Amino acid sequence: MQSGTLYVISAPSGTGKTTLLRKVMADISGLMFSVSHTTRNPREGEQNGVDYHFVSRQDFEEAIGQGHFIEYAHVHDNLYGTNRKSIEEQLAQGIDVILDIDTQGAEIIRNLTDLEAVDIFIAPPSVQELERRLRGRGTEKEEEILTRLGNAKMELEQCNRYQYLIVNGELEEATAMLKAVILAERARGHRDYSGKPITFK
Amino acid sequence: MQSGTLYVISAPSGTGKTTLLRKVMADISGLMFSVSHTTRNPREGEQNGVDYHFVSRQDFEEAIGQGHFIEYAHVHDNLYGTNRKSIEEQLAQGIDVILDIDTQGAEIIRNLTDLEAVDIFIAPPSVQELERRLRGRGTEKEEEILTRLGNAKMELEQCNRYQYLIVNGELEEATAMLKAVILAERARGHRDYSGKPITFK
Repeated sequence: MQSGTLYVISAPSGTGKTTLLRKVMADISGLMFSVSHTTRNPREGEQNGVDYHFVSRQDFEEAIGQGHFIEYAHVHDNLYGTNRKSIEEQLAQGIDVILDIDTQGAEIIRNLTDLEAVDIFIAPPSVQELERRLRGRGTEKEEEILTRLGNAKMELEQCNRYQYLIVNGELEEATAMLKAVILAERARGHRDYSGKPITFK
Repeated sequence: MQSGTLYVISAPSGTGKTTLLRKVMADISGLMFSVSHTTRNPREGEQNGVDYHFVSRQDFEEAIGQGHFIEYAHVHDNLYGTNRKSIEEQLAQGIDVILDIDTQGAEIIRNLTDLEAVDIFIAPPSVQELERRLRGRGTEKEEEILTRLGNAKMELEQCNRYQYLIVNGELEEATAMLKAVILAERARGHRDYSGKPITFK
């Protein structure tokens, strides 16, 4: 089976990434988010391997020790992490996997030579527009807005390290662009055929 | 001004390339065919630099001598050719240029290190289907069909040398793929920004 493509997607807070990804994933089949690992208990209706990989703290910590996590975090006394092997399993099933990760995480992926990824940066049309959007939500305090803006500027400086840059000025246009990138990657000869000569019988 | 992208597109005879390109060019702006040079006289309504670059035989032959033609051919006592400079002029105007050229021509472009191109191979779903289409036309003699099929098989062996491979099984799908490739290339960070750091003010 043709293995999937890993998409590493980064976007500063306030770029509209969540809405954008939701629209793209509704339209394109064979595309899923990376399934994270967690030590917390499954909630009603959650499926192991679909919503999360539910593992024991001991297994999680062993995996940390073995360097299996691309990134992990403590949240409310539980561990959450992105395990390289689980991504590879999804890819092996022929699924295109989206890994929504910040610029630091993306840099780690790039330096992991055995995980080939297509990286995409989603940018706001300008920092002014980003600030307008963050203030428009009306949910954050001034201090938090300034922190988010500062982080966003730092992240934006990294956008040239990505293969694709999509400016989310107009949602429909950005959706079309992101869908185009994913379809185009499916047309990449070297991905579809792994460099093996094709014989058209 | 952001310069355009050169698309080198090859497809064996009977692949449906002409219909496909016509559909894509109707939907995407800023995309044109490469303008060829010719020594023949302009016909009623033809514009120099739009339909062809109309040049004298002497100028054409000098350009051949100077190695300016990627390819050229004699047709009915006139010369027709693809001049590298005219492609570069279109690109410099920010136009994405389609160069419809066979696998041999594409190989020449690849080896011209100063002309960066995105190459795309359009393939039929199978050789059987290609044969069916060629016979379906009902316009060619058996001998000609066999020659075309033989050439197509030789060209298909080259498809792995292309960055993108689009299988034209269903026209709407192939059109969507080719449009996706062109849009995606426009989202390529390194093309849009030439590796220069972007400062989001």
